[in-house]
Amino acid sequence: MKRKRAAMGARLEGVEALVFDMFGTVVDWRESMAAEVATLLAEYLPTVDPREFADLWRAEYQPSMERVRNGSRAFTRLDVLHRENLETVLDRLGVDPATIPPPVLDEANLSWHRLNPWPDSVPGLTRLKDRFIIAPLSNANVRLALDVAKRAQLPWDAILGAEVAGAYKPEPAAYLRTVEILGLAPDRVAMVAAHNSDLAAASDVGLRTVFVRRATEHGPNQTSDLVPDGPWDVVAEDFEDLADQIV
Amino acid sequence: MKRKRAAMGARLEGVEALVFDMFGTVVDWRESMAAEVATLLAEYLPTVDPREFADLWRAEYQPSMERVRNGSRAFTRLDVLHRENLETVLDRLGVDPATIPPPVLDEANLSWHRLNPWPDSVPGLTRLKDRFIIAPLSNANVRLALDVAKRAQLPWDAILGAEVAGAYKPEPAAYLRTVEILGLAPDRVAMVAAHNSDLAAASDVGLRTVFVRRATEHGPNQTSDLVPDGPWDVVAEDFEDLADQIV
Repeated sequence: MKRKRAAMGARLEGVEALVFDMFGTVVDWRESMAAEVATLLAEYLPTVDPREFADLWRAEYQPSMERVRNGSRAFTRLDVLHRENLETVLDRLGVDPATIPPPVLDEANLSWHRLNPWPDSVPGLTRLKDRFIIAPLSNANVRLALDVAKRAQLPWDAILGAEVAGAYKPEPAAYLRTVEILGLAPDRVAMVAAHNSDLAAASDVGLRTVFVRRATEHGPNQTSDLVPDGPWDVVAEDFEDLADQIV
Repeated sequence: MKRKRAAMGARLEGVEALVFDMFGTVVDWRESMAAEVATLLAEYLPTVDPREFADLWRAEYQPSMERVRNGSRAFTRLDVLHRENLETVLDRLGVDPATIPPPVLDEANLSWHRLNPWPDSVPGLTRLKDRFIIAPLSNANVRLALDVAKRAQLPWDAILGAEVAGAYKPEPAAYLRTVEILGLAPDRVAMVAAHNSDLAAASDVGLRTVFVRRATEHGPNQTSDLVPDGPWDVVAEDFEDLADQIV
């Protein structure tokens, strides 16, 4: 165990900053959203399962960013995309968004600002902060990530990510501009994510990589990202395990 | 006293975020720099008073940013300007920068990342954070502000400022882009500064204002910014006094 720890830690030698994917890696968006939807929207969606609603809303996430990434739309912060996607999902479920008061929809949209961390996130980040600069490199806009952090007491050193970089992951600029702001070469920064695709994109532009297994991000029947599928520098079961290995 | 507190607090009614000038307002740059210069550069500058050197280096700050503000130079982070200004000051003192090893100059430049907070900064910010979003809105680049905060344990909710906004104070964009990132109208944000000029610029674009008296920022013979010279919403003696008034 001791030998394993030393060997794994050595793979991040020279790394000064850890940047974190947020949705799924730091926070449990699905259960958090389901609880919010059950509270805020049940009156308008009596027959819809809140977890299914969370999944449908989340399913619009990548397509909505893709329109920014492919240049058909100027950079637009995630809060705005989430709000548009909410109406898309309601429409798809046969619910006219106009029948729900706008303040209710706005409040539902703010559910993304109240996501709960995984149980190991705060204690793990607190330990990792002793040795590394820690910051989110999320597609969340700054205010969203800030609100999640303030509520959950995530001890970030800074809030970085797509809005600061002006580009959505997995665009190279999202990683490279973040690394530039940190004043570091790409190989001095490790991307921490529960998603192999995020690590592949980070690795392609020179960052180091940490895979954290989040086997229930999509619920008990999750099939994606159960195992690392690339030569990532470190594989961890959660943030406490990561701290055991590299702090 | 109770009545004064309530009246002052009311002037920030509706404010959700406090953004802070950093150099002079949160940190004592002059004494911090003098101590660093005395340690790192004394060997090369035996006849120069470290505080005088700090003053000379700081005096190049506004002129170097002015070249960015007036458009004669693309946005350039403060770390780069500081490094150039260091060579300017050495030249002016008759010291050829080439006679000092570059790693020594680089390390001296990093002195700006090790500035010490005023004694009330951490306890005051910790109390203010309970009620407000708190973030620097400094001309420091992100990594500089981050390093100062990590070393001094300043409990910021985010690191904002010129680099994130892409504009140096007192350009309107420095304030307005920061407010936009916070997702707030300008009058929901208060600028906290020890400098009347910063508050005037913030006020011109609709932010609320807090003057904090830092009577020894420039040493015992300071003549500037000893008193508020505008109709600022709150005037405080330090961050603890500010927390007494508005938390």
